[in-house]
Parts: sequence; structure tokens; C-alpha cells
Amino acid sequence: MTFDARRDTLGRAQPGRLTYWCELAWLPPGRVAAGVAVQVDGSAITAVTEGVEPTAGVERLAGLVLPGLANTHSHAFHRALRGRTQAASRGRGSFWTWRDQMYSVVARLDPDTYLALARAVYAEMVLAGITTVGEFHYLHHGTDGQPYDDPNSMGHALVDAAHDAGLRITLLDTCYLTGGFDRPLEGAQLRFGDGDAQGWATRAGELRAAYAEVPDVVVGAAVHSVRAVPAEQLSTVAHWARTATAPLHAHVSEQPAENDQCRAAHGVSPTELLAAHGVLGPRSTAVHATHLDEQDVALLASTVTGVCLCPTTERDLADGIGPVTRLRDAGVTLTFGSDSHAVIDLFEEARAAELDERLLTRARGHLSAAELLQAATLAGHAALGFPAAGRLAPGAAADLVAVSLESVRTSGAVPDTAAETVVFAASAADVRDVVAGGRRVVRDGRHVLGDVGLLLRNAVRALL
Amino acid sequence: MTFDARRDTLGRAQPGRLTYWCELAWLPPGRVAAGVAVQVDGSAITAVTEGVEPTAGVERLAGLVLPGLANTHSHAFHRALRGRTQAASRGRGSFWTWRDQMYSVVARLDPDTYLALARAVYAEMVLAGITTVGEFHYLHHGTDGQPYDDPNSMGHALVDAAHDAGLRITLLDTCYLTGGFDRPLEGAQLRFGDGDAQGWATRAGELRAAYAEVPDVVVGAAVHSVRAVPAEQLSTVAHWARTATAPLHAHVSEQPAENDQCRAAHGVSPTELLAAHGVLGPRSTAVHATHLDEQDVALLASTVTGVCLCPTTERDLADGIGPVTRLRDAGVTLTFGSDSHAVIDLFEEARAAELDERLLTRARGHLSAAELLQAATLAGHAALGFPAAGRLAPGAAADLVAVSLESVRTSGAVPDTAAETVVFAASAADVRDVVAGGRRVVRDGRHVLGDVGLLLRNAVRALL
Repeated sequence: MTFDARRDTLGRAQPGRLTYWCELAWLPPGRVAAGVAVQVDGSAITAVTEGVEPTAGVERLAGLVLPGLANTHSHAFHRALRGRTQAASRGRGSFWTWRDQMYSVVARLDPDTYLALARAVYAEMVLAGITTVGEFHYLHHGTDGQPYDDPNSMGHALVDAAHDAGLRITLLDTCYLTGGFDRPLEGAQLRFGDGDAQGWATRAGELRAAYAEVPDVVVGAAVHSVRAVPAEQLSTVAHWARTATAPLHAHVSEQPAENDQCRAAHGVSPTELLAAHGVLGPRSTAVHATHLDEQDVALLASTVTGVCLCPTTERDLADGIGPVTRLRDAGVTLTFGSDSHAVIDLFEEARAAELDERLLTRARGHLSAAELLQAATLAGHAALGFPAAGRLAPGAAADLVAVSLESVRTSGAVPDTAAETVVFAASAADVRDVVAGGRRVVRDGRHVLGDVGLLLRNAVRALL
Repeated sequence: MTFDARRDTLGRAQPGRLTYWCELAWLPPGRVAAGVAVQVDGSAITAVTEGVEPTAGVERLAGLVLPGLANTHSHAFHRALRGRTQAASRGRGSFWTWRDQMYSVVARLDPDTYLALARAVYAEMVLAGITTVGEFHYLHHGTDGQPYDDPNSMGHALVDAAHDAGLRITLLDTCYLTGGFDRPLEGAQLRFGDGDAQGWATRAGELRAAYAEVPDVVVGAAVHSVRAVPAEQLSTVAHWARTATAPLHAHVSEQPAENDQCRAAHGVSPTELLAAHGVLGPRSTAVHATHLDEQDVALLASTVTGVCLCPTTERDLADGIGPVTRLRDAGVTLTFGSDSHAVIDLFEEARAAELDERLLTRARGHLSAAELLQAATLAGHAALGFPAAGRLAPGAAADLVAVSLESVRTSGAVPDTAAETVVFAASAADVRDVVAGGRRVVRDGRHVLGDVGLLLRNAVRALL
């Protein structure tokens, strides 16, 4: 089975020329315009005209039309845990006890069950207006770490899942070699390992080559964390990504314990260690970046490294509130990820970044709705290696996400503050129509795959 | 126009005997049971039987059926501000600038426009599974403070709105006399004032008498805050509530500035000042209670005063994170309110209480799903003077709220952790059916009033 064969079978959309007429649309660099005609040819936008009336033959989109949202950090299989890890006894739950529960799901996945689960999760994302997912993928091998006949079977399953669900994927193939500083992989973790970074690079290189000609797939790289890749092997991953001109992501300082252990082992912070080995840079993204000192923030800024915030996961896992305003003020580009999928709703991620900062500072108005939408669209797509997606402009990917302004949540909105209404009051349930790469994948709240709730239920139950 | 006449016209439900069969139901004191038959006669539950199959003639309810949710703290007119107050310039927005925007809506309301707005807002609440609202009502008089011909016209409008929308109301008639410590009312605030507490008591007494025989309406009392009622007049309000055996609510320590000003004026905290004048007690609720010291917490506990948390508003207004675990550990009963209606979703309020505590403490598992549901149902109803509502048990109000476990948000749930799924993953959009006081007010996500989004839009636009 090759991806291209599947593409042909499924008949990926090349619908020819079509014009979408948007009641309201969010146009670059960040303003709401009324009566916007978006002309599409195949998978790209060819023209955007504002202030026009709808003509015969156009496809009308009601509400506020956004460019496609980018979910910059995903672990698809975590969706199976939703609602199941909240029953911890009082005061005893932590990030680390949650991780044990997560590993018990890991043990039950194979390429077939993962394809079914990821397809359903990605369809949930598409229903939420997400047109590109960054899958931080480390579940590479069979139980006990035995490679599958094709050592990239799991990666192929994820790409196929994205294709079926109708969104682009950046498969951030993740190097995960140790269970902690100077601790081998054990138990469920054995499935993550490639022996050493060179082993990882060989396998990831094969995966990247397989999709070299596929426009909707990027194979990038990830360092799981400084806990999981020994310092002396970091540069192998960084070199691979640099050579490939590929995105390179890494979990950074999600928990204070990681900082403490890194300082004990290496005398520097995780950010400093990554910088010293070439992991930071303009195509790099630090995921979480919750517990940073001033030097870390400066280092991310000076290396033009982005930061992917995952606020709903950081709430759920009790990570703490990251230095969002300090990062922004230092010039660091922000993006959002739904990460553990406690919730899949990028509006909730976006407003959480601002609202949690309000709780911390007791002031309002840190990140504007325009900044938050920019992070969720253009910046997120750029961080995933799709710089031509995430805006409604000629030459950009033909992604259009229509958000209702007539639901009980959004009703009463006026054009002037429609972006604020969407960011601060809408939910994923308000996404009514999604065009991804020119293909209409959601119509009036229905995904082309049908009942996504049912797909999710069946896929999750197969793992219980 | 009297309320009873309206009741007769609208034909409030007394549907006779009926059995609802619930796939799963949340039964006291806090567990999920399967195959639950809830027998209803008129507006009350007469029997609850678990572990049974559905028989012919029953009304089936899919998903997890909860008792009705209580929204313990509401300012209905704030809904008109949703999405409009987020455009503040960076770093300059605060609770106090938001308050100025809120006053500009106040200036435009009259009994007719408020009836239309509150009806739509309460219908939005019913769609979210809320069967009782606590309306903290201080918009009593005409512009410049001139009483209407009937000085309770605004209060009647709110009761009528609740009746039309199909939920019970506790009208917390609010005493609001000053614009701050030693500062008279001014501008829009003039509409709030009754001259003195005795003037308030006379008017509130008339309102209470008007609904003495109406089972779905409670007229209670509120002290707006220690900023708005001079210390020497607090006991008049407390006495009124005690004599009437009515709920008595008060905003308490939402902002540090209130604490500072109260200490400057009286040498004690707001909680201590309220205690000294008899405002605290078993029928009293302190709303917000965000900035408390140990003595305040002990005082609330020893007086058996409840606390209403409004987490989404406290996020939005940058109030800070209250001492939730300390209050719970001290034995204080917690309830939830959507307050400013930035969001109307009690599941979001409930999980926010836990998640914000996680952000603060970096540990999980403070308040269980069962505790959070208890706060949102039974405790909320008790705080509003409806102690026989909020649980699925014989003798309780016939309120049933069916939450889908098959949406993209909730799918994959299993019975054992269905309550966790609902609290931590569901949204108001997952409420499919609502029976309130025996009347089926929401069927498959549709309110009996029809398109609530349209009602909201029209009501908000009338105020612009």
C-alpha cells in the first residue's frame, strides 16, 4: 500500500474553479471585511475581493470565515484517554500519574487500530476547523520495541488517517531514546525507541522520502525532550532537520522537574541545552515552554524559535501558566496545539492563553483576538512547514472555515468585533463549513465521513 | 398584568404521570446508574428505579441524565456585552474599564427590552441544562432613578422572562445604595438605588408578596457589595431576609481593591464586615470570594455561608483564582454561576474551578467530578431556596437533563467514568433534552421557544 495509490482511490479533490462568497471574512493582516468573494482553483486561492454582492453560482458561507486553523501539537492516541483520567484520588494526581495511564493505551495500539483512532480524531479536528495537524509521533514500533515489517507502519497509518479525514499532516517523526536522564526505555516506552539518533534518522529519512512528492504531507522531526534524547545525540536530529529543511519540534520545560533534572545532569536549562546542540532555529518550535527563565526567553527569541502553547492540556495536567506575554514581547511567534485532546477546540486554546494570563496578572488585554487568530492560523501553518496556508489571500491554500454568528454562543455579534466574538465566545461546535485544500469536508456541521462521534466510539472501544 | 394571569395564558405544564427511562443517570449521593426509570407526576419525581429495561410508553433519554443544573449567579443583561469588551488596548483593560462598558448597556434597558433580552438569555440557559437561575437584580428604576409606575416593573419582567423560557427563578432583589465607600450613586448607577435600605426593603417586600403563592419563583435578597451598601444599613437587609426565610447573596472580595477600601473605611475585611452585621448565615451565599484570608474562610465556614464561584467570569475579568480547595476543606458549600455570561456553560464553570486550581498548585485531583456536579445541581438549588430540586429522587422537582455521550466531545465515554466525561469534556452543546418541573422544554437540542440564537440577536440588537 502506498499513499499515492490511496489518494487515487479516494479521489482527492481537485474541484476546478469555484467562488466562495463570505458574509464576513478575516483578511490579512487581521481585520474583518464584509462581502468577500474568495476564488479558488483546485487547492489554491486565486483571488480575494471584498465589498461585493453574491452572484449566481457562488457557494455562500455564512458567519465569519477564517482561514484554516493549524493544530500545531497533537498526540492523536491521547484522545482515547479523554474523561478517563479525572478520577484520581484527591491531591495525589499529577502529570506523572497521568503519564502512567497514557502508557496503558500505548500498549494496545497497532497500525490498524491506530489508523481507525487517528482517522476519527482528525475528523473531530476538521469539524473544529482545523486544516493541518502537527502530529508529534513517537509510537513507532511493535510491543517490546520490535519494528514492524515496514518500520514506518505506524507513521503511514497516521498519514492515511489524515488523508481520510481531509486535512494536511505534518508528521513530526519523534526521536525518543531514553526514559529519563541516564535511564533506559522500559515497558511501553520500548515501542518509542530507535536505538540511537542515527537509527532514528535512517527510519525518519525513509518516511520523508516516501512522501517527498505528496503536497499535503510534510515529514518533519521532533526531539521528544531533553529527558528522552541524550545531549550528545541531539545534534544528529538537528542536522537531519536542517539538511531536510524540515520543521523540528521539541517538548520544552513542561514541568519544573525537567528543568531540575536537566540542570543536575548538564548544568543548564533544557532551552540552553537544545540551543547548544543546534536544535533551536527559525524552523524550530518549543512545545509548552511553561517554565522558562529570562535567559530561556531571550534564547528562543534570538534563535527565532517559535513556541507552541497547549493551554487546555497545561490546565488539565497541572503544568502551570507559561510566560505568554513575556514571550510575545520578546518577539517569539506563538502557535497552539490541542496536544492531549482533553478538548479539541482551538478557540478554547486561543482564549485560554489570554484568560490564564489575566488570572496571573489581574489585568485584561494582553493578547488581542487578532494576535490569537494569527497564532491559530498563519503562524501555526508556518510552524508545520506550510507557509502558504493559514490566510485568505491569493496563492494561499484554499482553506475556509465558516464560524456561525447565529448560535446561542455567538448570536448578537456585530461585524466590528466579530473576531473577538469568535475567539472569546465561540466553540468548535460553531464551525459549520470547512473547505480544506479546495475540498468541502464539512457542510453545515457534518463531516464527509459521516457520524464522527460513532467513529470515535468504535475506535476508542477497540482499545478498552 | 399579573404573573398568574400570564401563567394561565401560557399553560404551564402539569402533564400528569409519565415515566422517563434513562440510559444512564446520576443518582444521589453521586454515582452513575444504568437503566433508570424516573417516574414523574406533575412537576415532581415520584419514584426512581434503577437497573430496569425500558417498557412501552416510557420517554427514553439517551446519554447521561443529570438532575437540573442551578445557575446561582446571573446578571442577565451582561449577555449583551459578550464578545464586545475584548478589544481593550494592551495592558490597560481591567475589571473597572469593563464595568464602564457594562454601564453603557444599563442606560438602554427598560422593562420591555429587558424582558426580551432576559427571555432569550434564560432560554440559552435552559438549552445548557439550567433549570433554576439566581438573578442578582439591581436594575430597578428608570433613567435618572425615577421609579416606574410599578416600582417592580423590571423585577416582573425578569420573572416573566424566566417563565417564558421555562426555568425557575430566584430573584435576588439587590440593595445597591452607593457608588463606593462614601460615594453617592452617579450616572447609570442612579437606576440601582432605593434611597436607603428601608426603601429597598419596602419595594422588595412588595415584590416578594406578589409571588408568595407562585411555586416556581423565589424572591430573595442581595447586598450588592460592601461598596454599595453602607455598613450601618446592612442589618436592615439581613433582617428582611431572615424574617422572610429567604436566600441572601452578596458579592464578596471579587477584587483586591474592595478589600483595601473596606479595610481603610472599616478596619476589617468585607467578609468580617458582613458577618458583623448579620449578613452571613446558612441561607447566605458569598459570590466570588476570590481574595480571602484564612480568617475570612473560617468565618464563612463557621456561619455556614456558601460560596458561589464564577470561574469563567473571574477569568474574563482578571479577578484571580479563589481559594477553592481551602474553602472546600473548611466545609464551605460551593455553587457555580455564569455571572457575566461571557459563556453560559456550567460544565465549563465546574471544570474551570478544578483546572484553575491545578494551574495554581501544579497538582491534579482537588475537586472530583461528583463534588463538582453536586455543586452545580443540589447545592446550587439549595442556595437559591429550592432545596427540593437538583437530585433525581422521589419528592424532588422533576428536572432531568440528558447529556449526549455520542458527540465528538463525549464519544468514547464508558459508564464508570461518564460523570468525569461530562464534567471535563462535555459542553453546553451536548445537552440534548431538558425536562424542567415536569415540562419538556428542550427536545433534541431545540428549545420550545424555537430559534434561541435569533431571539438573542434581536434582543441584543435592540440595545445597540
